[in-house]
Amino acid sequence: MSKTTSNDGILATVSEAPTSRRNFLRSASLTAVGGALVACGTSSAASATQQASVAQAGSPKPGATGGTMGPHDTAHTGGAISAADQMDAMHEKGIKAFPASTKVHGNQILAPKIEKGVKVFELTAAEMQWETAPEQFVAALAYNGQVPGPQIRVTEGDRVKIVLTNKLKQSTAMHFHGLELPNEQDGVPFITQPPVKPGETHTYEFVVPNAGSHMYHSHHNSAYQVGLGLLGAFIVEPKNKAQEPKVDHDVVFILNDGAHGYTFNGKSFPATQPIVAKLGEKVRLRYMNEGMMIHPMHLHGMHQTVIAKDGWPVPAPWKCDTLNIAPGERWDVVVNCNNPGTWAFHCHILPHAESDHGMFGMVTALVVQK
Amino acid sequence: MSKTTSNDGILATVSEAPTSRRNFLRSASLTAVGGALVACGTSSAASATQQASVAQAGSPKPGATGGTMGPHDTAHTGGAISAADQMDAMHEKGIKAFPASTKVHGNQILAPKIEKGVKVFELTAAEMQWETAPEQFVAALAYNGQVPGPQIRVTEGDRVKIVLTNKLKQSTAMHFHGLELPNEQDGVPFITQPPVKPGETHTYEFVVPNAGSHMYHSHHNSAYQVGLGLLGAFIVEPKNKAQEPKVDHDVVFILNDGAHGYTFNGKSFPATQPIVAKLGEKVRLRYMNEGMMIHPMHLHGMHQTVIAKDGWPVPAPWKCDTLNIAPGERWDVVVNCNNPGTWAFHCHILPHAESDHGMFGMVTALVVQK
Amino acid sequence: MSKTTSNDGILATVSEAPTSRRNFLRSASLTAVGGALVACGTSSAASATQQASVAQAGSPKPGATGGTMGPHDTAHTGGAISAADQMDAMHEKGIKAFPASTKVHGNQILAPKIEKGVKVFELTAAEMQWETAPEQFVAALAYNGQVPGPQIRVTEGDRVKIVLTNKLKQSTAMHFHGLELPNEQDGVPFITQPPVKPGETHTYEFVVPNAGSHMYHSHHNSAYQVGLGLLGAFIVEPKNKAQEPKVDHDVVFILNDGAHGYTFNGKSFPATQPIVAKLGEKVRLRYMNEGMMIHPMHLHGMHQTVIAKDGWPVPAPWKCDTLNIAPGERWDVVVNCNNPGTWAFHCHILPHAESDHGMFGMVTALVVQK
Repeated sequence: MSKTTSNDGILATVSEAPTSRRNFLRSASLTAVGGALVACGTSSAASATQQASVAQAGSPKPGATGGTMGPHDTAHTGGAISAADQMDAMHEKGIKAFPASTKVHGNQILAPKIEKGVKVFELTAAEMQWETAPEQFVAALAYNGQVPGPQIRVTEGDRVKIVLTNKLKQSTAMHFHGLELPNEQDGVPFITQPPVKPGETHTYEFVVPNAGSHMYHSHHNSAYQVGLGLLGAFIVEPKNKAQEPKVDHDVVFILNDGAHGYTFNGKSFPATQPIVAKLGEKVRLRYMNEGMMIHPMHLHGMHQTVIAKDGWPVPAPWKCDTLNIAPGERWDVVVNCNNPGTWAFHCHILPHAESDHGMFGMVTALVVQK
Repeated sequence: MSKTTSNDGILATVSEAPTSRRNFLRSASLTAVGGALVACGTSSAASATQQASVAQAGSPKPGATGGTMGPHDTAHTGGAISAADQMDAMHEKGIKAFPASTKVHGNQILAPKIEKGVKVFELTAAEMQWETAPEQFVAALAYNGQVPGPQIRVTEGDRVKIVLTNKLKQSTAMHFHGLELPNEQDGVPFITQPPVKPGETHTYEFVVPNAGSHMYHSHHNSAYQVGLGLLGAFIVEPKNKAQEPKVDHDVVFILNDGAHGYTFNGKSFPATQPIVAKLGEKVRLRYMNEGMMIHPMHLHGMHQTVIAKDGWPVPAPWKCDTLNIAPGERWDVVVNCNNPGTWAFHCHILPHAESDHGMFGMVTALVVQK
Repeated sequence: MSKTTSNDGILATVSEAPTSRRNFLRSASLTAVGGALVACGTSSAASATQQASVAQAGSPKPGATGGTMGPHDTAHTGGAISAADQMDAMHEKGIKAFPASTKVHGNQILAPKIEKGVKVFELTAAEMQWETAPEQFVAALAYNGQVPGPQIRVTEGDRVKIVLTNKLKQSTAMHFHGLELPNEQDGVPFITQPPVKPGETHTYEFVVPNAGSHMYHSHHNSAYQVGLGLLGAFIVEPKNKAQEPKVDHDVVFILNDGAHGYTFNGKSFPATQPIVAKLGEKVRLRYMNEGMMIHPMHLHGMHQTVIAKDGWPVPAPWKCDTLNIAPGERWDVVVNCNNPGTWAFHCHILPHAESDHGMFGMVTALVVQK
């Protein structure tokens, strides 16, 4: 049975106490790979971690990939920890912090009100401060206080209303990216509707057409509004479930790269959520790119079988380990979790995922538990 | 029957008087969607438009997507129109101007002279000022005064001559991108021929080989010469027309992103040409990327069925709504125009399509008329 | 029979004397296309070449694609060679230098030691100066003194050991990108193993799983370490050779774009290696992108048939002439060399391949000899 009521059924809970968070990866990995991480947990690494914050000021800037080797040896005096150890300590600190706790997650399933057989979803756009990683707050525009906005999940043929309330200082509008709607529901100001002014409410109403992994987002001043967070997943399940692959988990995976940095579902590593599955389970991933750049998504340890593009089943599924996702595209894949362990899972444009301070941005893990 | 003699059979005429141009979208939409645009045409919006040019100086720069919200409220004094209204007025102004008139369009079908059974196409490269949008002139290098150059459309097996005259200050040469020609016709200076010097004429001559959506462009100092406009479509129809999909319209869609800005067929929104079809018609689009960046092309309201890559039929057609086009690639798709209305059609790298001043660059519309 | 023992079986030898190198293209082309290059080899061009280095200082910078035409005419005084001739001379000089000799090539097949039936590959990471083109040395991190590192070529089911010795000033680790290994061999510090500290040696040991075109590279401070050269090809031939396409040549083609500039197998044009085949032969290309940008690879004169993605056979082979390769991706194609001549073969992001000083970076040639 597929758990589709929420990503939280599969993504690891991150509301635990700091101590248990710090132990997450270790325990997940110990279970999965028989203790490989034991070797990393040395006390010298721990003490290096404490001194890392001091050493950090003098080290090269994250993302610097220039042609010079840099002054990595400057700390090599007397009994000082080496530059290599300092760098490793920063890397370890990031990984041990994963999954780091942040107060609110986006992409939470939005339960509709039912009015006379119509599913009514209420979305309010407003300014807020969004926490992409612990204590990293960025200016955001968000639906219902979430980045990405709440996940809408309906079935082909459903009658729905989307009630959009604009509490921004700018006008806005909502486009249902991928849905083949009547033109007047398309959400493009001055072409299909007037803009929704600050303080106004606008209701979209339609019968849900084509199934698949779709999106909703602002289509007004959109480079700015979508870049700051006005976006979310709009999943349409087919009426005929026999068309669907049988999976144990169904995970929405929204990529973004604007003013909030490089994010998966609104969070940067180590605050991204790992995907946790049991050996033998199947996971469906629904990639959606809401950014301005491509992101080739590389999963370690197991391949991905591509089953749909923009919600349309591909004529013949095909396999890969690195799938290039361009802005506006959605790709659905299935991963057969037949290889136990904690697997790195990241964008393979390496400066989107790692600096000399360690992993950041577009990194998470798929944990396959024995 | 497919109208393949010219794109102009399907692209909207833009030589109309300003008044009728301003009414284009409204009337197209009124017909199509039953008056949805009426609500936008308020007199307050019109007066906001007039004041927008004054307000513009103090507003954020186009494309700015920084983390701050910006001072959008500064104009909120007394009875002054709000910052939101000012922004909306700029957006409306752009859309109401669409399709904006410019003096010359590129990609016009070039009729060959016939000499002893050979189709002779004459192309002269020269410097010029090119109008990408009304009153926006950019330095260009152009074939026959057009950007893109004239469209060459022939049939597999045709005997052709391309007579290239160089009126530039630089040498040049012509490569037929995608055509599997004899090596000496390949157009690469110092590998297959000497450069064509300023003032010289060089004749390429060959029997047209493989069918498909191909291109011709400079292959000398090409980053510069192609970036400034020395490019065009070279369409080869198959001898056996039974291979071809039956469509009502056949549209070449050349993407570029160099010194001329973000353009479709050499024009930036609102000077791009809409595609106009009747309900139930099929449109073939031939995407060609002559730029330096990817452009994921998103059509609203209807999906695109991919039928060919670089002129080669795909083994099995596949569907999408957002198709990623990389530099040098050509993709052919068919759109079944089964959804009436005016549909936004744009690159989904949002900063290529919209700023806080409104839509610009890589935006057009597909208008499906009832 | 496929020559798979080394790329050098097909790539042109570049250890010849300068004189014979200069004649390479001319003779290759003379054979192939019947003397088309004769017209280029004028003595005026040769004298222009000598003066080009003087003229170069005053000409526009490589890669400049601005909107102005530039002062190309400034040298037009008295009997001075024209600006066009000066530019052409620089272009010719580059092409005549191809393939330019550099001291060491990367991607050389690494012969394993055999220990009790196990293939043992020793890789040592160290700093070095790498020659990307004649006299162009860049700071590099390299395995066994090569960029890319030595090519590992094994068969499904082989038992292998990879002995990694770290002579860097930083810690490192090795990830086998695409191989579905047991988690503890995955090479991600603090997740699957401790980092390999400076001076340490770490041994990876596994039975080779899935066949295909894979890679090995650093997975520690990877944006920096991979960008500077810690990468190589890991080719796994299937046990059942009947699955494989029958080809005459098997060529690894690694793309990179970091601190070393735009490179194919660690070299920039004119130091890239041409691929040389006989008319009627088939060439398999294994593209691998280890950079940070897409590279749409365009072959002139013949199409490419795509047979595998990330080592997995595609459900149905498909044809193209321009194949977009994203970071981390591998694509296998077969070219049927049915068109004689010297064919340009380059990334179609033109600023990665040509400036007003001529071709550079991601350019090579496929030479089909009659």
